[in-house]
Amino acid sequence: MPLSGDSKEKKGWREAAREAQEHRDESISHVLANTTEQDVAARITALDPTSIARMTDAGELSAVQVVSAFLRQAAAAQQATNCITELLGARALRRAQALDAEPAEAERVRPLLGVPVSVKSHIGIAGGRMAAGYAAWWFTNPPAPRDALVIQILERAGAVAHARTTEPQSMMQLECASNLFGATRNPHRGSELSSGGSSGGEAALLALGGSALGVGSDVGGSIRVPAAACGIFGLKPTAFRVPTTGWSSTPPGADPVPTVVGPMCRTIDGIELFMAAVLAAEPWTVEPALVPLPWRSIDLGLSLDKPLRIGIAWHDGTVQPHPPIARALAQLAAGVRALPGVEVVEFPLYKADEAWAIASSLYFTDGGAADVAAMAASGEPPLPLVQWILRESPGTKALTREELEYWLEEREEYRLEYADYWNRTGCWDDGLGRWAGAVDVLVCPVAPGIATGHGTAKYWAYSAMWNLLDYPALAFPAGRASKELDVREQRASFMSDHDRSNWGLYDADLFDGMSVGLQMVGRRFDDEKVVAVYRYLKEQGCFGQ
Amino acid sequence: MPLSGDSKEKKGWREAAREAQEHRDESISHVLANTTEQDVAARITALDPTSIARMTDAGELSAVQVVSAFLRQAAAAQQATNCITELLGARALRRAQALDAEPAEAERVRPLLGVPVSVKSHIGIAGGRMAAGYAAWWFTNPPAPRDALVIQILERAGAVAHARTTEPQSMMQLECASNLFGATRNPHRGSELSSGGSSGGEAALLALGGSALGVGSDVGGSIRVPAAACGIFGLKPTAFRVPTTGWSSTPPGADPVPTVVGPMCRTIDGIELFMAAVLAAEPWTVEPALVPLPWRSIDLGLSLDKPLRIGIAWHDGTVQPHPPIARALAQLAAGVRALPGVEVVEFPLYKADEAWAIASSLYFTDGGAADVAAMAASGEPPLPLVQWILRESPGTKALTREELEYWLEEREEYRLEYADYWNRTGCWDDGLGRWAGAVDVLVCPVAPGIATGHGTAKYWAYSAMWNLLDYPALAFPAGRASKELDVREQRASFMSDHDRSNWGLYDADLFDGMSVGLQMVGRRFDDEKVVAVYRYLKEQGCFGQ
Repeated sequence: MPLSGDSKEKKGWREAAREAQEHRDESISHVLANTTEQDVAARITALDPTSIARMTDAGELSAVQVVSAFLRQAAAAQQATNCITELLGARALRRAQALDAEPAEAERVRPLLGVPVSVKSHIGIAGGRMAAGYAAWWFTNPPAPRDALVIQILERAGAVAHARTTEPQSMMQLECASNLFGATRNPHRGSELSSGGSSGGEAALLALGGSALGVGSDVGGSIRVPAAACGIFGLKPTAFRVPTTGWSSTPPGADPVPTVVGPMCRTIDGIELFMAAVLAAEPWTVEPALVPLPWRSIDLGLSLDKPLRIGIAWHDGTVQPHPPIARALAQLAAGVRALPGVEVVEFPLYKADEAWAIASSLYFTDGGAADVAAMAASGEPPLPLVQWILRESPGTKALTREELEYWLEEREEYRLEYADYWNRTGCWDDGLGRWAGAVDVLVCPVAPGIATGHGTAKYWAYSAMWNLLDYPALAFPAGRASKELDVREQRASFMSDHDRSNWGLYDADLFDGMSVGLQMVGRRFDDEKVVAVYRYLKEQGCFGQ
Repeated sequence: MPLSGDSKEKKGWREAAREAQEHRDESISHVLANTTEQDVAARITALDPTSIARMTDAGELSAVQVVSAFLRQAAAAQQATNCITELLGARALRRAQALDAEPAEAERVRPLLGVPVSVKSHIGIAGGRMAAGYAAWWFTNPPAPRDALVIQILERAGAVAHARTTEPQSMMQLECASNLFGATRNPHRGSELSSGGSSGGEAALLALGGSALGVGSDVGGSIRVPAAACGIFGLKPTAFRVPTTGWSSTPPGADPVPTVVGPMCRTIDGIELFMAAVLAAEPWTVEPALVPLPWRSIDLGLSLDKPLRIGIAWHDGTVQPHPPIARALAQLAAGVRALPGVEVVEFPLYKADEAWAIASSLYFTDGGAADVAAMAASGEPPLPLVQWILRESPGTKALTREELEYWLEEREEYRLEYADYWNRTGCWDDGLGRWAGAVDVLVCPVAPGIATGHGTAKYWAYSAMWNLLDYPALAFPAGRASKELDVREQRASFMSDHDRSNWGLYDADLFDGMSVGLQMVGRRFDDEKVVAVYRYLKEQGCFGQ
């Protein structure tokens, strides 16, 4: 056998997977050796970030207690769902000890004191591998020289990074399977259903109490789809608010569809705590692509004169969502209609097919050549969803410079058209010289189903549209599926092939009892308004949980 | 003679120029027939926008009086400098009459009531030609279907668009010469010196009192260079603050170096009035590429504990500015040093050559093919500066998609490096967890000379660096050249060939008495701080006028 073949074999994908999983398992063994079952017994892992920070600051809990509990629970979550690439036991416990040793009277601003934070693995942790879902890169990518900027900021605010989570081959799946670590399973129906993705490790870990606050990323649904599939919250912020420095080789601002970093959490409080803490650090002085907007408090100014207007999008014109999602939307609309000072507006989504045509043409401007090369470098096979997006999705093609410029103009034209479409839900007020009374936010499905069977998530339009537009979008739990109430009706016709195949994927028994996610979308930079409207409707009992 | 040749001859550039100039001259004749010398006698054209709006609102002047005076004066400015493409006499007088007819008690918000506004010709005026400096496009570009968004907003605020101004062939000159209209001359030394450009028509018209407020655009210095050459103010705002919808075929947000629209005026008050009025209209709801930041009032918070820190950049490491500019900088530094609570910091510009290499690679991603085709379509010859930037500037080359992506990454890396460089003028404050005490703004030359002889403006780095970085930059008058004080010294060595040739261009007699422009630069989105610091230093007498 020739040496080159031998050498190639040594750097093959199976070797990378073995090494990656050994590394992961050692990090878990370290945690199991340094924590006990008692650490999780106190139900600390049921606490949300706000409570943790309050109790730690008040001395009711120590940071070490909190971090130990979440580390131990993260090991259990790994067992259940395969969501972890590495636990940061030694680092996290050292950091927790240092926080506990700080004099309480010290002038410190630590709104996240003692809060365990998990991190999607492509977001740098100093010294950690940056494989980004490809086996070859496990060997060849240099370890992160330092923590990503967002992690530095969170830790300065008192958080403790304790876990790194899974991400899929190519990063471009709405599920979470790689040859390095295998597939991440749904915490509720693991054998049949995916966690969703690409931030699927985060969603599964958070849903099982293995983390208090998660840092995910989203270029086509990667925060929101797994959040919905696992029953938690996930915010895709407007781009250029949360720093991305230190997350990959592409500097912020150079991508035709910007990838954003954002929070995932079991509570809306945690989402807002993350955003406020990150923006309070004024990251725009370090990362100049960011816009200098602090997290603003929003007065919804509810009145009957100027009602809050909520758009409802039942479907996108191409694929009907599954019955539990349609019912959650209908319940929400009914709840909102009953409120004084709030109006429901029918809001058909605008040209979803065109949005997908543009976005999918801009995702892989090289036609996937770099991805194919990355797989070839270790000999790893493409997983089914990677095969699909690189080879079967018509948008994926190598672009000339002229074609790239064409699609960038199409992107901007679409954004202009959408702004006009949104404005026309209001009316032109000549006195003010602007559009008045347009919809404040809209609610729509995150995806056409609650969660997908492994290897079947091929419809991105519901989530990716908002990436193309760069509108903030919050995935939130909005009730539970019921096999009695959510019956699939026979349909005589379908809007598209996607519609037909999605209809075929519904299984009332399988989804029974699972959380149903929806997303609330605002106009660009209206992140605060989205959160504020969600909170208001929640207080008014519109989500029927 | 074949028909096709005949037909081509009919659409040649000389025919376009004749038609364009006839159209201009007719518009001027209309003004001369509908105004009198008396209209300008009252020195109305010496008033600045704030005074005009106040006096018109108080009924001390009518909008018709004001507009008549500026129209008449614009015709005179055309005679002197060749700055006009079209006067909007009929439209402007009709609009002024309508404003005068509004009931005074009407609830109206008209901060620009009666203020005549001139518009660089590529910014759409309903029904007007959009030649953008090329003869062929005079025939082929459709007329603007409506006013550009920024003009709509200004007119809703009470302004009256009364004049359209010249722009150069290709728009990519720091002067203002085209085959359609010829060269725009400097209002002070017209036969020898250019107005600067590309917004040279605006600068010349404003300097001669033919307009109260101008709308220019800037992708490499095109607001600031002519403002400095003509002795007025010009602000290049941070991109995505002032709307560009309606100014060209490229939608906002699709350009690798964004072209910005911004104000030009004889007073700083006018600059600020423009920005406040435009942003008060919330243009981001119509043009979603814009960032929803209103014009913010800035408290400089001067104290000896936290001094205001002003960076001074004497030169860019490649070209020494002419003596009057060096002296203006030295005077400013001395004035600032004498102020309590303000510090001067030496701020060598960072990698000016690299900035130009990146910017000039991104200006013409097709290597100028579209420009060459536009010239070929009418047979017009390239003017010397167009020949230079398309054929002799090494940055101009057709890019592949890979090369375009390479330069976009270089752009973002350079922006990151510059933010770091700027931060390091302060110090790392571990208590705050951020950089503290960095320079607030910096002052540097706009260009290596006051103004250029016709066809010689080939050094863009001083102005284009801030376009690449997207930092706001205000050109302002900072004293006057003096042949006694500003003597060219013999130099034994030069930093570069550019330096040597720039040195050779200085002529103490020619520039004697002309206004010297400098620019004040802030970090991204610090437009308000730049204006506030300028105002403060002006109040303190730092500009020695």
